[in-house]
Amino acid sequence: MNENHRFEIRLAGEGGQGLILAGIILAEAAVYDGKNATQTQSYGPEARGGASRSEVIIADGDIDYPKVTHADLLLCMSQESCDKYFYDIKQDGVLIVDTSYVSRVPTSKSYRVDITGLATEVTGRAITANVVALGLIVGLTGIVSRQAIEAAVVARAPRGTEELNLKALAVGLEEAERLKSQRE
Amino acid sequence: MNENHRFEIRLAGEGGQGLILAGIILAEAAVYDGKNATQTQSYGPEARGGASRSEVIIADGDIDYPKVTHADLLLCMSQESCDKYFYDIKQDGVLIVDTSYVSRVPTSKSYRVDITGLATEVTGRAITANVVALGLIVGLTGIVSRQAIEAAVVARAPRGTEELNLKALAVGLEEAERLKSQRE
Repeated sequence: MNENHRFEIRLAGEGGQGLILAGIILAEAAVYDGKNATQTQSYGPEARGGASRSEVIIADGDIDYPKVTHADLLLCMSQESCDKYFYDIKQDGVLIVDTSYVSRVPTSKSYRVDITGLATEVTGRAITANVVALGLIVGLTGIVSRQAIEAAVVARAPRGTEELNLKALAVGLEEAERLKSQRE
Repeated sequence: MNENHRFEIRLAGEGGQGLILAGIILAEAAVYDGKNATQTQSYGPEARGGASRSEVIIADGDIDYPKVTHADLLLCMSQESCDKYFYDIKQDGVLIVDTSYVSRVPTSKSYRVDITGLATEVTGRAITANVVALGLIVGLTGIVSRQAIEAAVVARAPRGTEELNLKALAVGLEEAERLKSQRE
């Protein structure tokens, strides 16, 4: 985390990709780890058409301003969101794009993963892409513990889909390890 | 709405009452009406134990600060939330309490409704209390149109429960009319 222990996460894509729920799960996991968190979504001109944006702030202390100003982590699950939000990432911020939707990335410093493809391959359901993405985010940033994100995923998974979602999470975490080892 | 066309709503109670989803539905309804909206929930010391708090800001213009400072409308579905947030209501703000959970209300200027009781009676499911509450809120404040809130409820209702949830909404709207006519 940065100097004042505030970590800003933006999850951007389209409606129906489960990004709001992913934000809620991430915020709840932070609390399991003893941190504070807020999760906000904006509607209206800021998120016109099918666009969806979920923002999570995680901090050790109070969170006075619950919106992202410069993202420590940006996840893009649509080309539009990547084009729009790329410029708000911090210099050392992490960018993750889902190559199922994003083909043009304006930097070489990004993690390009076929998140939706991985989700479909491993769980048979594209809708678990949001949980694969959570695994990637947690694996790459360590912003919450593995234990906490697992507990939060299970708590929010529709009944009967807990195992499926844990599988999706595990794939994201493993992919993160693979990506990190490539950069070393 | 107030001078700068910003309306602040706080939905407070406990986890499992569906207040986050209620906030999302309300925010989405505002967009159907052509307005801007944000929905935020806070986790951590601010919402310790089982407490849950969902905040919605609806405005004609941009929303720079997505947190409630002084609520135009406060819904309390737990005694604790009523004790805690009562003091942040605007002078002419509206307070709605669910008498299934709240017995002590520190003002006579409130709407006291057995929201959970009504939900159980009409739909057979206490979990629809959040949608009954939405009907009350919309009926009492007119902050979004009936058409918009119906569309937003249907869009977010789990498949197969659309009719049930519209019934819950209608009960809340009717109860609001009854309460308003009593005050005239």
